[in-house]
Amino acid sequence: MWKRLVECVPNISEGRHESLISEIATAAQGRGRVLLDTKSDADQNRTVITLVGEPDALAEGVLALTRAAVERIDLRQHRGTHPRMGAVDVIPFVPVRGVTMPECVVLSRRVAEEIADKLGVPVYLYEESARDETRRDLATVRRGEFEGLAEKMKDPSWSPDLGPSHPHPSAGAVAVGAREFLIAFNVNLATPDLSVAKRVAAAVRFSSGGLRYVKALGFPLAERGAVQVSMNLTNFRRTPILRVLEMVRREAERCGVAVSGAEIVGTVPREALYDVAASSLQLLDFSPKLVLEERIEEAFGVDR
Amino acid sequence: MWKRLVECVPNISEGRHESLISEIATAAQGRGRVLLDTKSDADQNRTVITLVGEPDALAEGVLALTRAAVERIDLRQHRGTHPRMGAVDVIPFVPVRGVTMPECVVLSRRVAEEIADKLGVPVYLYEESARDETRRDLATVRRGEFEGLAEKMKDPSWSPDLGPSHPHPSAGAVAVGAREFLIAFNVNLATPDLSVAKRVAAAVRFSSGGLRYVKALGFPLAERGAVQVSMNLTNFRRTPILRVLEMVRREAERCGVAVSGAEIVGTVPREALYDVAASSLQLLDFSPKLVLEERIEEAFGVDR
Repeated sequence: MWKRLVECVPNISEGRHESLISEIATAAQGRGRVLLDTKSDADQNRTVITLVGEPDALAEGVLALTRAAVERIDLRQHRGTHPRMGAVDVIPFVPVRGVTMPECVVLSRRVAEEIADKLGVPVYLYEESARDETRRDLATVRRGEFEGLAEKMKDPSWSPDLGPSHPHPSAGAVAVGAREFLIAFNVNLATPDLSVAKRVAAAVRFSSGGLRYVKALGFPLAERGAVQVSMNLTNFRRTPILRVLEMVRREAERCGVAVSGAEIVGTVPREALYDVAASSLQLLDFSPKLVLEERIEEAFGVDR
Repeated sequence: MWKRLVECVPNISEGRHESLISEIATAAQGRGRVLLDTKSDADQNRTVITLVGEPDALAEGVLALTRAAVERIDLRQHRGTHPRMGAVDVIPFVPVRGVTMPECVVLSRRVAEEIADKLGVPVYLYEESARDETRRDLATVRRGEFEGLAEKMKDPSWSPDLGPSHPHPSAGAVAVGAREFLIAFNVNLATPDLSVAKRVAAAVRFSSGGLRYVKALGFPLAERGAVQVSMNLTNFRRTPILRVLEMVRREAERCGVAVSGAEIVGTVPREALYDVAASSLQLLDFSPKLVLEERIEEAFGVDR
C-alpha cells in the first residue's frame, strides 16, 4: 500500500455503451494507481469511475482518462436524466491517507491546468479548490447545463477559471476540485409511514437546520414495509457517522419508531470506522497504532 | 502485507539483561516474519516478545528464538515475581488473518515437535492445542514451576506431551499452544470507591457467572480518584468488546456510577474494531469490502 493516497472519482457523460466506457476507464490505468470501480446508469447516461493512487501517478491517469473521454463523447448527442455540462462532467480529488486537503487542492488545480492547456476544455474550480465562494457548489456551477453553457460563459461572473472562454464544441466544460470523502449512509426505520423518514431527514440535514455536513432525504422501502433516511455525509471528520446515527435514532424515537438497521453504499474510509469504534468504546486516547495490522504495516515500512 | 498471518508471543524468563534479551529476540528475525515488540519487566525477570508472519516463516523464527533462549538462560539462577517453568516459558500461536484455529493448532504442534526433537526440551501442549482438557489451562500446567518440575513429571498424568520425560537441566519445560487473540481492555469508572469496580468485575467475568470469554479484576486508579475494571477478553469473536462495555456500563449504573473512559493495552485486531463499528452503526450486512482500504488492497492482490 502506498503511504500517500488520493482518490479521484471522475463522472463521465456516457452510461450506455459498455465498450466505450471500458475504453475510457482503462485509459486511466498505469503504474502507481488502480481502477477500483466503475458504476454506470443507463437512464442517467452517466458513469462514476473510482480511481485511487499516489498523487502524481493518479494525476497522470486522470488526464489520460479525460483525454479519452473528450475524444469519444459528444455532448451534442447526449440525453440523460442527470444534469451535466461536460463529456467529463466533474473530477473530484479526495485525500485518503498521508495527504492534506491543501495538497489535494494543489493537485486538482494542476490537473485542471493540464486539461485546459492540453485538451482545450474550459475548467471551473469547485468545492475546496474554488477561487470564489460562488463557485464552491457544483449544482450552481453546472446550472444551465451543456446546452446553456455558451450563453452562461458570456456573463463575466461565469467565465471559466482556466482554458478557453467558450465551451469545447463536443466536450463542454468540466468542474475540477478537491473535497472530503463522501459517505453514503442509509438508516432504515421500522415503520411504513414515509412522513416519519421525511421528518427525521429534515431534522438531521444541514439545509433545514441540522448537522453541518449532512444531506438527507426520506424514501419508502416498498418491499419491506419500512422507510429509509438516505444520507450523504460530506465530512465525516467534522460530523462523525455515529453522531448522525444517534440523532436519527433520537428523532425517530419522538415518533415512537425504532431504527431497524443501516447500510453504507459504496465504501467508507477505514479511519471513519476506527472513529466509530473509538467513540463507542470511549477510547479517549485512541490511535491507529493500537491496531495490530497498522503496527505490522509500520514495522514493514510498506511503501509500494 | 501477507495474506496468511499468524502472531506468536513467546514469553522468555529473562527481563533484566538488555543485550541478552536483544540477542534472543533478534534470533527470530528473517524473511517472512517481523519482530513487532519486546516488553521486559525487571521484577518479573521476564520478557514478552511479539512476532508476526507467514505461518512457515514464523515457525522457523520461533524455533531459532527458542534455541537462542535455551542456550542463554539458566533457570537454576532465575529469580522473578512471575510464575515460570522454562527458559522459554510459553509459546502461544494466534491466528490473525487467512488462517484458521485448527491450522494454528497444527502449526503449534509442529513447532512443539521440533523443540522437543532438536533442543531436547520437554513440551506441554496447552489451550486449543492441548490433547487433554486437564492441560488446557496454562496456570495448571505450570503449577509447581521450574523447581517442582522434576517431581511433577514423575506423575504419569503430568508426563510431557513431547520430548524427554524429565526437565531440561537449565531450560526446564515449555508450554506450546494455539489460542485466540487476547485483548486487554480497561474501563474507568467515575468514582473513588474500589468496591464498585470489584462488584462490576465480578458481574462481567466468567469465573463468577459473567460472560464466557472475560477475565476481570477491579483496581484503584489512585492518581485520578477513579477506579478501573481491568479485563482480558480471550475471544472477541464470541464475546465482542462492545457487549462487554455495555455490561460494564449497565452494572456500574446500578451503583450510580458512570464510565469515564476506556483503554486498550497493547494491540487490538482490526477485525475487532470493524465489529464494534458495525454493531454500533447497526450495519446488518457489514463486510470488510465496504472499507476503502480493503478494496484497494484487494485490487492490488497484495501478497508480500
